[in-house]
Amino acid sequence: MTLNKILIVSGTHGNEINPVWAVKQFCKQNNITKNNIEYKFIIGNPLACKKGVRYINSDLNRCFDFKKNLGKTNYEFDRAKLLVEKFGIRSSEPCAIAIDLHTTTANMGTSIVMYGRRNKDFCLAALLQNKFGLPIYLHENDNNQKGFLVEAWPCGLVIEVGSVAQNFYDPNIVNRFLVIINDLRDEINKLKNNLIKLPKELIVHVHQGSVDYPREKNGCINGIIHPERINQDWVHIKKGEPLFLDKNGNTIFYNGDSNICPVFIGEVAYQEKNIAMSYTKKEVIFSAEEWVTEFLSL
Amino acid sequence: MTLNKILIVSGTHGNEINPVWAVKQFCKQNNITKNNIEYKFIIGNPLACKKGVRYINSDLNRCFDFKKNLGKTNYEFDRAKLLVEKFGIRSSEPCAIAIDLHTTTANMGTSIVMYGRRNKDFCLAALLQNKFGLPIYLHENDNNQKGFLVEAWPCGLVIEVGSVAQNFYDPNIVNRFLVIINDLRDEINKLKNNLIKLPKELIVHVHQGSVDYPREKNGCINGIIHPERINQDWVHIKKGEPLFLDKNGNTIFYNGDSNICPVFIGEVAYQEKNIAMSYTKKEVIFSAEEWVTEFLSL
Repeated sequence: MTLNKILIVSGTHGNEINPVWAVKQFCKQNNITKNNIEYKFIIGNPLACKKGVRYINSDLNRCFDFKKNLGKTNYEFDRAKLLVEKFGIRSSEPCAIAIDLHTTTANMGTSIVMYGRRNKDFCLAALLQNKFGLPIYLHENDNNQKGFLVEAWPCGLVIEVGSVAQNFYDPNIVNRFLVIINDLRDEINKLKNNLIKLPKELIVHVHQGSVDYPREKNGCINGIIHPERINQDWVHIKKGEPLFLDKNGNTIFYNGDSNICPVFIGEVAYQEKNIAMSYTKKEVIFSAEEWVTEFLSL
Repeated sequence: MTLNKILIVSGTHGNEINPVWAVKQFCKQNNITKNNIEYKFIIGNPLACKKGVRYINSDLNRCFDFKKNLGKTNYEFDRAKLLVEKFGIRSSEPCAIAIDLHTTTANMGTSIVMYGRRNKDFCLAALLQNKFGLPIYLHENDNNQKGFLVEAWPCGLVIEVGSVAQNFYDPNIVNRFLVIINDLRDEINKLKNNLIKLPKELIVHVHQGSVDYPREKNGCINGIIHPERINQDWVHIKKGEPLFLDKNGNTIFYNGDSNICPVFIGEVAYQEKNIAMSYTKKEVIFSAEEWVTEFLSL
């Protein structure tokens, strides 16, 4: 295994401040290198962090589809290129894995977000699910949402912690990041030394699509998440159950498939993306040997 | 009693969206006039609401000290003048009372904020505390913070509901505003008709000052609220108890008076005001007959 550098990105969104703080605290108290793996730390979007906003011109975490964005230039497009030039697999400080730390205003607890079905990602996600029991949101096949940061590395996951308000320092949220940063290399080391095996199966929640708020013709939101639905991330929604509440007090009911678990319910940053929540379906995936062999050959 | 109009302001801060929604819902479902009292509704800062930001140029809820701001002009200063010209006591639609609806990211529950010790405000606050048991934050004697909206009306209070993230629609938070808007006129009507008496005493938490985060020389926050302090609004803090946690993992301890209850702990919007939390002291105030007589002569 040649894997000896992991990139830890915080502040990819400038108003998600707890991971930035967690990294500051980690760097002061812990070894940057452990088990022969070095952590490289970078603030994804330093200017947005300084201003306390999600981004300056474009959502940085949708800027890593370099084919699609060919020729485009602004603060975030340029920043995406720079991050890959500096820490990408062909750079002078090549990191095989990127871990991107995020927070959400949705009541999702701590979760892992993975993009597509790469064997190496499955291996890392399985390691973390095995250790912490975290739910996994598998994002795939969404033409409206592409170019996530971790996709630009051979292996990479998002750690998503909520609920916490944008720009609100919450030491409990900070701690949840610290636990994962602390233990990640130990788990990799155990796997490398054949001290643990991956669980036989991985439980993932697979992205099915998203639903927007009811809106007026002018685009204004015309219905909010229903009181029975708010904060119920990961919970099954059944046909005929309340979804939204409009300003006349009328309930708008869910009329879809019965195997759906919504996530990112009411996430503030997704209002502009026309997403009130995303729908997922639970799927059990059997572990494959290639997950480990490909991961250990990183 | 000549009181026949109450001004209900929402969206004084443009990223506090739940009161705006509560008012929309209320207007669709309820009578604007009840018990001979008409509600006038206004969005405090419509441009900031549209943009989802607290304010455009200045915090509107610090722009109502017209002597201090004489000659100053920007979006919020002009808006403050316009609100008073339109709904002030000398306007064509004079409102005797202003109720300003706010949310906080701090874990304060629902509370009443009053500014200074006006008899009429005491009466209204006592009515609401009597009905709902709400804590009262009495803000006074703070030279850094003046010119609150409700001070420009003969009587007025802030209703503050938390915790909720900025720009996050939470139907439970919306409901808390609806309950108060619904019942306010009934309580006033009962008082007017001698059907209820004020409680003999009013419990208030009196503002003593504020404390900033530990900061680096360049102004960056260098310590966050301690895990044992976060979300502990209204709870006594004792000398020697943890206050902040710096990035080296060192605890900074509280070293002040033992009768202090912090509020607005970690409020996001106050970072720029150099406030990590405000200190209050509990005080019991005996009700006075003038409270009612002055209120009923509004």
